[in-house]
Amino acid sequence: MSKPAGSPKYIPFESMAVGQIQNFGAYEVTETEVIEFAKKYDPQFFHLDREAAKHSLFGGLCASGWHTCAMTMSMMVENMDKTGCSLGSPGVDDLRWIKPVYPGDILSVSMEVLETRPSKSRPNIGFVTSKVTVSNQHKIAVMEFISKGIFPRTE
Amino acid sequence: MSKPAGSPKYIPFESMAVGQIQNFGAYEVTETEVIEFAKKYDPQFFHLDREAAKHSLFGGLCASGWHTCAMTMSMMVENMDKTGCSLGSPGVDDLRWIKPVYPGDILSVSMEVLETRPSKSRPNIGFVTSKVTVSNQHKIAVMEFISKGIFPRTE
Repeated sequence: MSKPAGSPKYIPFESMAVGQIQNFGAYEVTETEVIEFAKKYDPQFFHLDREAAKHSLFGGLCASGWHTCAMTMSMMVENMDKTGCSLGSPGVDDLRWIKPVYPGDILSVSMEVLETRPSKSRPNIGFVTSKVTVSNQHKIAVMEFISKGIFPRTE
Repeated sequence: MSKPAGSPKYIPFESMAVGQIQNFGAYEVTETEVIEFAKKYDPQFFHLDREAAKHSLFGGLCASGWHTCAMTMSMMVENMDKTGCSLGSPGVDDLRWIKPVYPGDILSVSMEVLETRPSKSRPNIGFVTSKVTVSNQHKIAVMEFISKGIFPRTE
């Protein structure tokens, strides 16, 4: 799954265009994994206890929002292994947990390029802003964020 | 670690004031955990392979940014167990991975209230915006984000 050092395949900045959409992924959310993640990182009862969670605002056991981020990253890296990767990311904006993610859900990702901008100070890189939308099997968006990526310029 | 259903202790909206700062946490980052998280959710070589990572931009094996989010949440929940919790969070803004997080680092959190705003449409809740800064043992900020929380109004 890892790339050998020094040889990752980067996506050239010039190949990215506003409006491009990539759809990828299928990640099946399991109760075991939801609880395992929550025990370690987000031990709130609605992420841990199936019975107690029925009485929570979410109506049932659901994944930690950060677990949904992690599952999304897993799909993004799998996609990068096919298409290529960025030089890195300074962060994300406007991360929203729109709907609960439940065990049994099957998540997928849609990624749309919103903006491409060559760096003014560093002519060999460019910045790409994308909107990442994560949906469940009912095509209902459960999470979204704006992703910032740095890509190498080749022209 | 979990709270029994129906009985979490909520922090009243009225007790939150702009400028309040909470400092908490100590989370020791281990190589085993960095690799375990990365294998599952972010299998890029600089999160997986100590030798190969030396030749990466990060200069060594470092934690997935999403792992740093998860470790931060763990400290936040531990703090909530002492101080009380919110009704939930719609998301975070301006998440930035400022510096790499390495095995051996000890992380801690500083959380400052930036804004408190009663809901106009729902008189029983209010919104609190906080800045979350995660630092390492050298007091260097490694990650920050703006957190949005919903709190019950009692007055």
